[in-house]
Amino acid sequence: MTLAYPRRQRQLESLIERLGVPNKDLIKWQLLDLALIHPSVSEKANYEQLEFVGDAVVRLVAAQVLWENYSEFPVGEFAAIRSVLVSDRILAKLARVYGLELYLQVAGGASNDRAGMESRLADAFESVLGALYLSTNNLELIRPWLDPHFKKLAAEIRLDPARLNYKAALQEWTQGQFKVLPEYRVTQNHSQTDKNRFEAEVWLNGEKLGWGKGRSIKSAEQAAAKVAFLSIDSQGKP
Amino acid sequence: MTLAYPRRQRQLESLIERLGVPNKDLIKWQLLDLALIHPSVSEKANYEQLEFVGDAVVRLVAAQVLWENYSEFPVGEFAAIRSVLVSDRILAKLARVYGLELYLQVAGGASNDRAGMESRLADAFESVLGALYLSTNNLELIRPWLDPHFKKLAAEIRLDPARLNYKAALQEWTQGQFKVLPEYRVTQNHSQTDKNRFEAEVWLNGEKLGWGKGRSIKSAEQAAAKVAFLSIDSQGKP
Repeated sequence: MTLAYPRRQRQLESLIERLGVPNKDLIKWQLLDLALIHPSVSEKANYEQLEFVGDAVVRLVAAQVLWENYSEFPVGEFAAIRSVLVSDRILAKLARVYGLELYLQVAGGASNDRAGMESRLADAFESVLGALYLSTNNLELIRPWLDPHFKKLAAEIRLDPARLNYKAALQEWTQGQFKVLPEYRVTQNHSQTDKNRFEAEVWLNGEKLGWGKGRSIKSAEQAAAKVAFLSIDSQGKP
Repeated sequence: MTLAYPRRQRQLESLIERLGVPNKDLIKWQLLDLALIHPSVSEKANYEQLEFVGDAVVRLVAAQVLWENYSEFPVGEFAAIRSVLVSDRILAKLARVYGLELYLQVAGGASNDRAGMESRLADAFESVLGALYLSTNNLELIRPWLDPHFKKLAAEIRLDPARLNYKAALQEWTQGQFKVLPEYRVTQNHSQTDKNRFEAEVWLNGEKLGWGKGRSIKSAEQAAAKVAFLSIDSQGKP
């Protein structure tokens, strides 16, 4: 069933063409419309619940792409790569590829919040995936256009681990293996001569896994997480 | 294609009957067999990668059950309920309902590890979901028997929030909203008169969200998380 507003219907059809969705007759347009309504427009009828479904959908697509293309990888590497694939940074980038910001309805103040743009785009991208999944109850409207992105990104992440967010990767791994989160202990070095004045340690179950320095708390934590993550051996032990 | 080992094939068919999977002709038996091989049996050919896929599958089933049955709930409640539905505790319980431990191949030492039993069962349950999903690329072999469990559990969790794991629920919410984890600060009270000798505070982005006491670090953290979680109002602000 198409929408009652022919202009919005035409808009959404142009988005679907951009995405290259194979069979647009299967699309539930009301869901796709809802997927592109930011909570600032309506407190009740907005994309939040579709985003919740879409969050699971994007994790499943990423898992299946890894399963089908990289079956020889240890599962720790699966987890690390997926944590990048489903990150806001990547999802917002994909959203921009398709110009999702042109279709997203945002009200007044929120549209000027440039800092929130990345997470807004990532959220809307997940919501669109939720709407496409719920249109058919499978991934047939999604994988034909999303798989090539994920395959290319997975290969890039694999070759250039510097693209990894090591904190996210380490967390994904410790949660999967031990159901606990790593702990960071940060100290500040007051000597004026050292640009890397923050020092971070990362601990897990009472054991220190890594240590690093940085100009900010965040970069020191990333450095510590990198040491810890790269020290996880192929048996999956730290 | 059925397995080369008739005895294992009959075993797995009996599991499928127990589950009440509607159409067993669609099952990829090799995947189901792999889903029930613990890493202690084979370092290479075990359930770990199917578990990785299954982890996304179970989150999707939970999301879709909530979407279809509780569309009026705020999304924060979705997140809280799902964090319980996909917890090891619940998944291991469901695994036991179907006697999954009878089908799981575990080697020597690991099978005596009673403490690890819950997470082993939860992992194997996810792996089976991964195998069933990959057999058809949709949820048709899963939802007919898993939905009734999730609907009943969601209703119970809703009515009796004490069943909630508040730390997990709070974490799910802060990650969804702010992409950061809550921080716990625990202190020990050395007075001998107080049974609840641990005190925990939970902080988010520099703001204290809750405070609680308990006999153990874990119970004090749960108490603090409960205060914080229940103080999240319907606008989703702490």
